[in-house]
Amino acid sequence: MAGMTEARLQELGLELPSAPAPAASYVPTVITGSLLFTAGQVPVKDGQRLFVGKVGATMDVATAQEAAKLCALNILAQVKAAIGDLDRVRRCVKVLGFVNATPEFGEHPAVINGASDLLVAVLGERGRHARSAVGAGSLPFGVAVEVEAIFEIE
Amino acid sequence: MAGMTEARLQELGLELPSAPAPAASYVPTVITGSLLFTAGQVPVKDGQRLFVGKVGATMDVATAQEAAKLCALNILAQVKAAIGDLDRVRRCVKVLGFVNATPEFGEHPAVINGASDLLVAVLGERGRHARSAVGAGSLPFGVAVEVEAIFEIE
Amino acid sequence: MAGMTEARLQELGLELPSAPAPAASYVPTVITGSLLFTAGQVPVKDGQRLFVGKVGATMDVATAQEAAKLCALNILAQVKAAIGDLDRVRRCVKVLGFVNATPEFGEHPAVINGASDLLVAVLGERGRHARSAVGAGSLPFGVAVEVEAIFEIE
Repeated sequence: MAGMTEARLQELGLELPSAPAPAASYVPTVITGSLLFTAGQVPVKDGQRLFVGKVGATMDVATAQEAAKLCALNILAQVKAAIGDLDRVRRCVKVLGFVNATPEFGEHPAVINGASDLLVAVLGERGRHARSAVGAGSLPFGVAVEVEAIFEIE
Repeated sequence: MAGMTEARLQELGLELPSAPAPAASYVPTVITGSLLFTAGQVPVKDGQRLFVGKVGATMDVATAQEAAKLCALNILAQVKAAIGDLDRVRRCVKVLGFVNATPEFGEHPAVINGASDLLVAVLGERGRHARSAVGAGSLPFGVAVEVEAIFEIE
Repeated sequence: MAGMTEARLQELGLELPSAPAPAASYVPTVITGSLLFTAGQVPVKDGQRLFVGKVGATMDVATAQEAAKLCALNILAQVKAAIGDLDRVRRCVKVLGFVNATPEFGEHPAVINGASDLLVAVLGERGRHARSAVGAGSLPFGVAVEVEAIFEIE
């Protein structure tokens, strides 16, 4: 039932979280043609909001990278919930990562690498995406990172 | 001339605003294949900028939801201006909502529900979209909310 | 080798910068179907980060427009690196521009016009795009502007 991509997750010692329910009036994924758009994922695990903080003040870069990694795991969990098997992912096309940071913070690329590196580790070449990493003035529930993605699927 | 979707707008007691002119050097919508991308819409009505304020400081969540609802109405007005009949909307695919909020604000999902709920009320199941809601450090002209969307059209 | 679009660049006295290397674990462009997504481009030239500052405080609107223009040149450089000839651009579909600004700043549309006007000057009608311009709380390395774009290509 689990395909090669999920075998790779296991090799990496990673477990897909249960796909988090949206925090409001929307759906976690929409497929149009061969594109799958995900809702923004925050660092939630088993219904618990983790990694609440302001990067550059109450949270350091290394911790924020872990937050970004958990966002990416939630993205993969949503994709699996939508298409059943991650082997059907042809490509991660685009990632947009928001860091809840102080006005002077500048290490957004390093933070969002937590998500990008996870996608490449799990999906290999198919995980390599175009990306923007920016600073949000604030984020839902005070979480440190929010990440959304677009995938090409078969 | 007006289709079923616009009849639904009327049932809801809603009126599409005139599609606002862009604030600068761009166009309000672009269609590529079956996708329609809208420019970010702000809470403008009849050329008047409404809902100027910083959410969490000078504006509360309930008021900001109204701002988000007006953004969504402007989105629908732009889509109608582009494709003539909202019945040609197959699906709202993706919404990205920005809230002009204080650094500590965390209720972005509730604010952007003002837009999401409007889209679902008008479009029904076709209105259910993937979504990200984030905090902007600032927004054009000091408005409280800006929302952009992607639609699948026929 | 250089097509009509690059002749137009020359007429405008503009030179495409070398396509900047990504700051982290991602690729500068991904093509899916007829769409090309770019990574967020910052005002980098010849490996030097230019236009570091907070708009509304340490940088004025006119300077930030130059930053946005350089972001757009880098976008075109990435598109050329991906598809070889800018004549293959059918349309700039969408631009998302982030301005690293103070909480009270409101002239984002004027700033991001620096990018939009460049795209229209170079690409003509093909350069006219849907757009959102928003305020980031912070940006990578403290740059003043970051811009990403979606193109339709042939």
